[in-house]
Amino acid sequence: MTISDIIKKIAPCDPKIQEAAAQRTASLAMPLRAMGEINAVSEKLCAISGVLTPDVSRRAIFVMAGDHGVCAEGVSSFPQDVTMLMMQTMLEGRSTVCVYANHTGTRVFITDIGTLGEVKAPENFSAVFYDRKIAKGTANFTKTAAMSRADAGKSILTGFETASENIKKYDLNLITTGEMGIGNTTPSAAIAAVFTGMEPEILTGCGAGLDNAGWLRKVEAVKKGLHLHSPSKDDPVGVLATVGGYEIGGMAGVMLAAAVHKIPVILDGVISTAAALIAYAIAPDCREYMIAGHESEERGHKYMLDYLKLTPLLRLGMRLGEGTGAVCAIPLVELAAATITKVATLTDAGVVKK
Amino acid sequence: MTISDIIKKIAPCDPKIQEAAAQRTASLAMPLRAMGEINAVSEKLCAISGVLTPDVSRRAIFVMAGDHGVCAEGVSSFPQDVTMLMMQTMLEGRSTVCVYANHTGTRVFITDIGTLGEVKAPENFSAVFYDRKIAKGTANFTKTAAMSRADAGKSILTGFETASENIKKYDLNLITTGEMGIGNTTPSAAIAAVFTGMEPEILTGCGAGLDNAGWLRKVEAVKKGLHLHSPSKDDPVGVLATVGGYEIGGMAGVMLAAAVHKIPVILDGVISTAAALIAYAIAPDCREYMIAGHESEERGHKYMLDYLKLTPLLRLGMRLGEGTGAVCAIPLVELAAATITKVATLTDAGVVKK
Repeated sequence: MTISDIIKKIAPCDPKIQEAAAQRTASLAMPLRAMGEINAVSEKLCAISGVLTPDVSRRAIFVMAGDHGVCAEGVSSFPQDVTMLMMQTMLEGRSTVCVYANHTGTRVFITDIGTLGEVKAPENFSAVFYDRKIAKGTANFTKTAAMSRADAGKSILTGFETASENIKKYDLNLITTGEMGIGNTTPSAAIAAVFTGMEPEILTGCGAGLDNAGWLRKVEAVKKGLHLHSPSKDDPVGVLATVGGYEIGGMAGVMLAAAVHKIPVILDGVISTAAALIAYAIAPDCREYMIAGHESEERGHKYMLDYLKLTPLLRLGMRLGEGTGAVCAIPLVELAAATITKVATLTDAGVVKK
Repeated sequence: MTISDIIKKIAPCDPKIQEAAAQRTASLAMPLRAMGEINAVSEKLCAISGVLTPDVSRRAIFVMAGDHGVCAEGVSSFPQDVTMLMMQTMLEGRSTVCVYANHTGTRVFITDIGTLGEVKAPENFSAVFYDRKIAKGTANFTKTAAMSRADAGKSILTGFETASENIKKYDLNLITTGEMGIGNTTPSAAIAAVFTGMEPEILTGCGAGLDNAGWLRKVEAVKKGLHLHSPSKDDPVGVLATVGGYEIGGMAGVMLAAAVHKIPVILDGVISTAAALIAYAIAPDCREYMIAGHESEERGHKYMLDYLKLTPLLRLGMRLGEGTGAVCAIPLVELAAATITKVATLTDAGVVKK
């Protein structure tokens, strides 16, 4: 399987189903489109699945973990070993995203796609773990490319394959992406700058809690990387190779898998959305399979979602990552599926409008 | 039990628990308060329950139904018999709120507190139904008081008792309110005008789908009612009697019951929030037990929530009522409880900040 093969398998949703879904919404026993964005998600689920009775009961989150050479520039408020510590906490089921996954009936798959360390497997895994390390962290993109072009492609294929095999194995019908990687809002800002064309100052946030001096270093690192490599939006694999990260490539692959298998994928915050920008540039039709879980507090996320023309379901000032914002949106997506599938029609209820 | 008895049983939350909860949040294995509003809800749940391990697993929605004499003024786009038709659809479990309650593990209690008709009970009730009709709809408040002062008090006590007996019976630890009543956004706008002091034009929306002429009639009806009765915000039972509704009084009673039993109550849209304004005026401390589920598309809701100093969890352009917006927020409240109860601490994860 190559990226070219994947592109060939991705097609847009059927506009006829979308139209039929809008008619179904209009027939429901409620004032016209009175559930607002929930009605819109219902219809999107119909368009994606090709049926008017979408089911999102078999869910999973694919978490990708990687480390970042650009941390040497002082762009994160946490030390790099936190990537491994939080992965272990995830494997024990005690990180925020794992707690949320448990409450929302979501399977957890965690892939080490490029961290510096080694996970010490706890006795009782609560998640499925894949060791698919491509390298021990990226290089510092202010000095050299983050990774080779070949490894960038490999990261996308790793995410694609991990998701595809489990989508098939468990007949998944709703997936989300998550990540762990200290420093990864920095490559995300760089990727956002390439695709949106906006200034790094607008797109760069404080991540896990940078002070002003830290923020200035982060903006400077993004600018250096962009100046050094001049990545082009027409070459998404090149963008990933020069200023990206292994987990970002992995998540892009997961999103492409959702589109190939015609199931919805919920985006999380800036890192997940940076992956979405890469996936969208590779295969524009894959955007139709994306649902924006939330708008993060991290600066720049709003503009990235605008670029993708996606409306976030939640705006709660969240900025944790791990996939937490995406999993918070799962119950709303479930209710959207239930709305169009189970609510009575005006005719069922015997209601005639004035 | 009288309203005076209820007032005596309502006390503010313990600020020490709130403070301890904020410390617990700061200790969690995430950047400081990185879950935004979810962290704030976690802490509110602690303050309400008095423990740092809040549980919201035993849930119910109390739906109150009533009809409105003010419909004679042409203030609704649906005919009044829709109140009964939708109640029957609810009893069959096929209205939107019942579908959502089923998906979120929420018991449904439906009370006919003042509708015009009689429910024909379906063979298989999916909800508990109470026939506690005080009168067959309110009077047209543009001509006379909506109800007697005695009946206004009775509506509050009916809601209070219905909720209290079930909170005790099922040991409920999270409740929400819902309603059905064609025309009930009109009394809600009038109540909002009394308490916020804002103009009816700002507070009156298009309800289930009024056109411009209908909206003008609705504003005129609200103004006539306020001019005729001059209700005072210092007399909440008087406000309810003159320009309110039976289901609004019932929901205010449910909210007072939540405060007495020290459990959280999630508000829905403008009608539920009009009830919250009444409850807050009766016993100001009850506001501490309220969580705003969403900000409705219906004009005025934002200002009502501002008056109560409540931040809505969702803003999805919803305007259905029934309690749907409140039930949509239940999974987020559940995740808020899980965040503070189950997520590892930084110490557990072995993370030391730079």
